[in-house]
Amino acid sequence: MRKASTDSTAPRRPVTLDVVAREAAVSLATASKVLNGKPGVSPQTRERVTEVLQRHGYTKRGGAQAYSPTIEVVFGALDGAWPIELIRGAVQVASESGLGIVVTESGHEHGAAPGWIGPVLQRQPAGVILVASNLAVDAKYQLRSRNIPFVLVDPAGDPADDVPSVGSTNWAGGVHATRHLIELGHRRIGVIAGPESLLATRARIAGFRSAMDEAGLPVDEELVLVRAFDDEASPAAGLHLLSLPQRPTAIFATSDVKALATYEAARALGIGIPQDLSVVGYDDLQFARWAGPPLTTIRQPLYEMAQAAARLIIAFRGDQGRGAGRVELATTLILRSSTQSPS
Amino acid sequence: MRKASTDSTAPRRPVTLDVVAREAAVSLATASKVLNGKPGVSPQTRERVTEVLQRHGYTKRGGAQAYSPTIEVVFGALDGAWPIELIRGAVQVASESGLGIVVTESGHEHGAAPGWIGPVLQRQPAGVILVASNLAVDAKYQLRSRNIPFVLVDPAGDPADDVPSVGSTNWAGGVHATRHLIELGHRRIGVIAGPESLLATRARIAGFRSAMDEAGLPVDEELVLVRAFDDEASPAAGLHLLSLPQRPTAIFATSDVKALATYEAARALGIGIPQDLSVVGYDDLQFARWAGPPLTTIRQPLYEMAQAAARLIIAFRGDQGRGAGRVELATTLILRSSTQSPS
Repeated sequence: MRKASTDSTAPRRPVTLDVVAREAAVSLATASKVLNGKPGVSPQTRERVTEVLQRHGYTKRGGAQAYSPTIEVVFGALDGAWPIELIRGAVQVASESGLGIVVTESGHEHGAAPGWIGPVLQRQPAGVILVASNLAVDAKYQLRSRNIPFVLVDPAGDPADDVPSVGSTNWAGGVHATRHLIELGHRRIGVIAGPESLLATRARIAGFRSAMDEAGLPVDEELVLVRAFDDEASPAAGLHLLSLPQRPTAIFATSDVKALATYEAARALGIGIPQDLSVVGYDDLQFARWAGPPLTTIRQPLYEMAQAAARLIIAFRGDQGRGAGRVELATTLILRSSTQSPS
Repeated sequence: MRKASTDSTAPRRPVTLDVVAREAAVSLATASKVLNGKPGVSPQTRERVTEVLQRHGYTKRGGAQAYSPTIEVVFGALDGAWPIELIRGAVQVASESGLGIVVTESGHEHGAAPGWIGPVLQRQPAGVILVASNLAVDAKYQLRSRNIPFVLVDPAGDPADDVPSVGSTNWAGGVHATRHLIELGHRRIGVIAGPESLLATRARIAGFRSAMDEAGLPVDEELVLVRAFDDEASPAAGLHLLSLPQRPTAIFATSDVKALATYEAARALGIGIPQDLSVVGYDDLQFARWAGPPLTTIRQPLYEMAQAAARLIIAFRGDQGRGAGRVELATTLILRSSTQSPS
């Protein structure tokens, strides 16, 4: 029996861009600019038009157009050793499906800079992976309206429920790093972390506090340095903590780079690792095992995270890019030689 | 006055694929397979057809077709810390021209594996950068016949005259590393290098020999370890050299990773760096300054090499992809704390 057109499962009658423009009280040209991510529209207008597009579930015509056989991976900055792990994981999965990985740098260190989406949309990718970033509402609808699936990896903030993301267990990582130091007998434990704007950073610090609390240890706030590092490889934070009258006997750094910068600070002050100071890092980048001494750290499964993100994109392609869901992969404590009981 | 068609500067009358197939004594289908990089053709036949295509300067029809706005960067393996430097440099230059960088792993550690070109041609890139590899003759003509410009970066062997490439002064790097150790007073200098199949490796070792020769010092061949490392981060080579009855007082490692593996060997044997052993690396990857002690090394300008390669691709696009030429960028000695006079 043929269903009545009022049935709620029947597809909505598609709205035209004309209608969207009229409802948002803008010209058709302006509505088109917003839809296509072009410049020359005020933020307020852009938001209003996006809201109307969203309300009508507007989908750009030509949904069956030919996409490039590529997935775009958008980094804020291609800095340091961790982007390559993500690239490798994405390349591995994508190549199995005959897809290429396009690597883009938006130029904004923590998350995609405004304007990142223009060149990406022009290349009409089969999907977008956005690293360590948020997804602005209008960017989300530009992708949705083109049926381009997207996934956030290691999202900067708490993503909306309808934004799929792949992260790792940052809170548990902070707990395990701190618990390891407590079990060795450390009581004065310093933290070098940042920037606080990243969800991952806040979760790792919260994990530190939980582990201290669980052991009944007070947190000396003087020892918790949370900074928006210009140069996370700078030894300044370590020099500060290690020059305190009552310096910490152990430091939990929320990245391997910050841990090695702490090594540099300790070397400069003649403080031996691990005999005078224990250090735990975070990431387990390739060089962690080559440090002197090899670095005890929390392994973040970057390669696997990127694989999972690429697999989600490929799964979403059959699904009109409308999938959601949050994946969290486990972190692991990797024991090496930078930690021991305090002397 | 109209030039006669026999004038040597007049364009040749284009040959059809039919003629190529007949001359190579293969079917049209086989000639088409070779032209398009498809499998199912014996190496001998592929070579014969390629030779005929080349002789006629065959160019695929549709040279004005739409290319993807991307440059493909083809790595053998996305391993270690140096690919990201090259990716960053290529991304920086490409994005200025509105081009995306597609990163591909051919799966062959030293140079592109056979079959790499199929997916690349399918994506119809605006150019191809091939890293640490050679370019097989048929791959060269598949790219040429499609007017897709290409550049080799850090070529594996000596590229043909008509293959543009960007390298760095590997021989001079070997000379400067060795001369630095000699000037400090070292006489027994070990070398950890490999694989010998790479032109870069051979040039660095030749630089070492030249510097020794220039100083009138004999080379003890027992101290020159050239290996095809399965795992260049393994301390085995260092353990071997440092366990010799008359061990070297200094080691020149032809990569930073090999240098840090040598650190690991020295630590295991209780040999102090730099007091008991000086070490010079090669590359100046980001982690070199975080090593304990910070590594003296030869800086290879990977970022700038990739920039130069991307600029060549962009320049060649206006030139039907027929440019050639060889660029060599300078290497520099970076002095840190892993070298001192022998005690």
